[in-house]
Amino acid sequence: MSFDRHHLRWNGWGRTSDSFDLGKHEDEVWDWLRGAVGLDAFADRPACALADVVMPEPRLPDGVLSRLRSIVSDGGLKVDAYERVFHARGRSYPDLLALRSGQVDPAPDAVVYPGTEAHVVELVALAHECGFALVPFGGGTSVVGGVTSMPGPDHCGVVTLDTTRLDRVLSIDEESLTARVQAGIYGPMLEQQLQARGFTLGHYPQSFEFSTVGGWIAARGAGQQSGRYGKAEEWLVSANVATPRGLWTTEGFPASAAGPSVGHLIAGGEGALGIITEATVAIHRVPEETDYRGYLFREFADAVSATREIMQQGLPVAMVRVSDADESHFLQRFSHLRKPPGAVQRVADDLLDRTGWGQGRAMMLVGIEGERENVRAAHSRTSSIVRRHRAFPLGQSAGHSWYRGRFALPYLRDPLLDRGVAVDTLETSTEWANLHALHDKVTNAIRGALERERATPAARAMVMCHVSHCYADGASLYFTFIFPQKADGAREQWETVKRAACEAIVDGGGTISHHHGVGTDHAPWLRREKGEIGYRLLRAIKDDLDPSGVLNPGKLLVNDSEPPSD
Amino acid sequence: MSFDRHHLRWNGWGRTSDSFDLGKHEDEVWDWLRGAVGLDAFADRPACALADVVMPEPRLPDGVLSRLRSIVSDGGLKVDAYERVFHARGRSYPDLLALRSGQVDPAPDAVVYPGTEAHVVELVALAHECGFALVPFGGGTSVVGGVTSMPGPDHCGVVTLDTTRLDRVLSIDEESLTARVQAGIYGPMLEQQLQARGFTLGHYPQSFEFSTVGGWIAARGAGQQSGRYGKAEEWLVSANVATPRGLWTTEGFPASAAGPSVGHLIAGGEGALGIITEATVAIHRVPEETDYRGYLFREFADAVSATREIMQQGLPVAMVRVSDADESHFLQRFSHLRKPPGAVQRVADDLLDRTGWGQGRAMMLVGIEGERENVRAAHSRTSSIVRRHRAFPLGQSAGHSWYRGRFALPYLRDPLLDRGVAVDTLETSTEWANLHALHDKVTNAIRGALERERATPAARAMVMCHVSHCYADGASLYFTFIFPQKADGAREQWETVKRAACEAIVDGGGTISHHHGVGTDHAPWLRREKGEIGYRLLRAIKDDLDPSGVLNPGKLLVNDSEPPSD
Repeated sequence: MSFDRHHLRWNGWGRTSDSFDLGKHEDEVWDWLRGAVGLDAFADRPACALADVVMPEPRLPDGVLSRLRSIVSDGGLKVDAYERVFHARGRSYPDLLALRSGQVDPAPDAVVYPGTEAHVVELVALAHECGFALVPFGGGTSVVGGVTSMPGPDHCGVVTLDTTRLDRVLSIDEESLTARVQAGIYGPMLEQQLQARGFTLGHYPQSFEFSTVGGWIAARGAGQQSGRYGKAEEWLVSANVATPRGLWTTEGFPASAAGPSVGHLIAGGEGALGIITEATVAIHRVPEETDYRGYLFREFADAVSATREIMQQGLPVAMVRVSDADESHFLQRFSHLRKPPGAVQRVADDLLDRTGWGQGRAMMLVGIEGERENVRAAHSRTSSIVRRHRAFPLGQSAGHSWYRGRFALPYLRDPLLDRGVAVDTLETSTEWANLHALHDKVTNAIRGALERERATPAARAMVMCHVSHCYADGASLYFTFIFPQKADGAREQWETVKRAACEAIVDGGGTISHHHGVGTDHAPWLRREKGEIGYRLLRAIKDDLDPSGVLNPGKLLVNDSEPPSD
Repeated sequence: MSFDRHHLRWNGWGRTSDSFDLGKHEDEVWDWLRGAVGLDAFADRPACALADVVMPEPRLPDGVLSRLRSIVSDGGLKVDAYERVFHARGRSYPDLLALRSGQVDPAPDAVVYPGTEAHVVELVALAHECGFALVPFGGGTSVVGGVTSMPGPDHCGVVTLDTTRLDRVLSIDEESLTARVQAGIYGPMLEQQLQARGFTLGHYPQSFEFSTVGGWIAARGAGQQSGRYGKAEEWLVSANVATPRGLWTTEGFPASAAGPSVGHLIAGGEGALGIITEATVAIHRVPEETDYRGYLFREFADAVSATREIMQQGLPVAMVRVSDADESHFLQRFSHLRKPPGAVQRVADDLLDRTGWGQGRAMMLVGIEGERENVRAAHSRTSSIVRRHRAFPLGQSAGHSWYRGRFALPYLRDPLLDRGVAVDTLETSTEWANLHALHDKVTNAIRGALERERATPAARAMVMCHVSHCYADGASLYFTFIFPQKADGAREQWETVKRAACEAIVDGGGTISHHHGVGTDHAPWLRREKGEIGYRLLRAIKDDLDPSGVLNPGKLLVNDSEPPSD
């Protein structure tokens, strides 16, 4: 195991020793946030202590337990409360509601830590034979309910398979720029080993520190620099997957026309098609140079147009990130409160305000990585494009500041929840021609639902969005919303908002997820997105690979009935 | 229909009015070729005339014929001999053997030309209901037996569905850079319409003039400039596919994490999973500038290393093409015979010879396309890389010369066959670390088999190869082999060579095809490539979409028995 899990929060984000640093003016930040969501006073809603958590009695038959123990005979079977609760849920908002309330049901009956690929194959075969649900679990950071331990009605129990002992870099092909890695390796350990040899996978999602390669693939995740390094389905070359049919090594060629690529179904399979044990992934040389910098646009639309042009010219940018007016405003206020601007900065802000970069302005971050000369050429080309779209250059300090804090934000959620303030995010993607319409539709849906579901008459929601993963034909939209929690019915309040947002996305021509995945939370909308024939085909694929339905039940293909409608 | 099919060769390549121009010194070229393959005299093996072709009696029941006629009631049902023979086969070497011999069995009982997507859906439903084989046919240029009309033993007949009346560009999204096009549109008509609006798909396979969008997708094809424009599975955004389950519109988003992408199974589906009626494809602005130029390397290995570096730096090249020593030698001789070099050229050649670019030298072509400044930046970066690998720049004339003749070579096959000389090609891809080993293994396998199968004691084979589609992790290898045909047993001679090459590819870690597809000819090796679980899954996918097995039988998933072994 790469981490001592006891140093991680079982009911919140990250290491127990770490928290979000609000700076010297912490009280003012909290005051501003309180005012911004329309609260006179914060609530006091501490999380339940571990000792007070209520979990169901384990119900896995003794015979199964002893067979599990004989497979992971080196102490890899755990049944204690900490292991059960740590693996009961991921890190979605409803996950935190459940964990913080102390009502953790269902929870795994047992947790297994296989030490070898062969163990995983045996465990999958045992689940298939005995009919217990098997939930693969890497870092457990799913924000869509992807690792919830949910047995189906016919299962004799539920076991979570923790992959984090499979944590080795097996080999590096320096000529072909690929690496064979085990699926349970955490981001930091992977990068440490690759970078020691001069290479990088370059996959840095916000969960990077606490998530694993297998999880990235299973959820079709994207790192923040996906423009250069690709989404998981792009950097995945091939995988070893334990299925009830045996160990499946998927196709792995630079490119092929040997019929359809069936192996790529594993990207996004969410453990419901098989458990990834090992992957061959495309790596890069550690970039000689990185160039991150900020630009300010008069309007979100200008920044989006510039982004589109950068992508459609095929410029080799690692990242373009554009905040809408609401997010740009929030980020500026938040940053100024944490670190008040000096006199020069205030004059400059004022000047920008009066010359057209004021209300409605949009912040862009551009990241370029690679060989020095290529980075410089790409910077020169991007900066000439953004200038034509009336951007004001903020220089590299804005880029560095974002880069330094790029994994920190999730730490803010726990202290917000302690104060009765909820924060959630959701994301989608669509083609450029539909981007603004979808942005407005989803923003309005979230805002409207939160207005209807407001905790108090004065409660307000902050709803903001950024474009963060960009393509020639379109981009992702990432929404963040912050709102006072209802004292009673917090879960129902969230469900109403989530449903409104998902309906807006699917009606509005977006995908139900760009990089978070489906899990439990998006599953009701999958059928509409895939269409009847596509959904049926996905079901046939699942049934072929997992005929007894033991692999991660309740996710992806929840049921084959119609999705809910408003 | 975009072409009058009667102006195309029914048993050879392209337009009856066109042929390969061997230049003023045609006799010398033929003499050289004759000598190179070890023949004292060419054979005289003219192709059978259309009037003498023997085809099986149509056996489709009258009831089915009349139902077909009622669907394509605007004259879209054809049963005449020309239509039947034109649609009986593709353009593989064994296809030509069959067509030229006049023994065309099987052949379609009827050919239908649906005029609308709804017709295709009805035709597929009818095939499913009545149990006749339905073979989709676009341009019919498959070189792997992808369109052979092969009914299964249980089918009551075989109908070829020609898509070429579905030939419209339906819409262009100039903002998202995508186009909705019907599947049966030929390359030239597609590009004409796109380019009139300032756009291009940029997909130029060697068959460009005579193949269709649907075929490109179905076979997972690659254009010569796939470095910029992508293989079919990359530029495919979404497709409409007629299946026995109904019309399937596959997912189409810039990127998604909504479970596995099932729609992408259509790329490489070869009409066995459904018939593509329409596709949304990624387009580009017509490049402002194109820069094609040649370089000469002292050794193939130097050129391959330079190519790898270009790709791994992510430089935006549209094409890098590297001929091995045998191909470079062949190309130079062939070109000099067609157009003898002047005095200056001869001196230069001699100088190159004596300074290290002589025997064993390798020719590289680099093509860059795009916005002027980006092209110039990419040229500057690539030329600095190739210089470091000891390349001698040949300038743009070498590039232009290749570009002008890029669709011409297939025309050479028919006059070779008239003279008893066979030419065939096959291709694969593998990772860089395995490229030279696979190159040598396949070259030796082909050479060895042709030696054992030689037509006369003095017969020799020319075997040559180029790298033509390059990626960060590897590249394709494209083999061409020219050899005297056996007077009797030409088909068996070819089978032996083909089997030896395919075994070498699969044993040597290559894919059975990089862009030609599977069809009938590679089907015996697909199971070994996909592995037992992957192959079984592909079968489950086929069974779900085409439960009665009427779609393009005999291709892709031929049978589920073991592949042949040597």
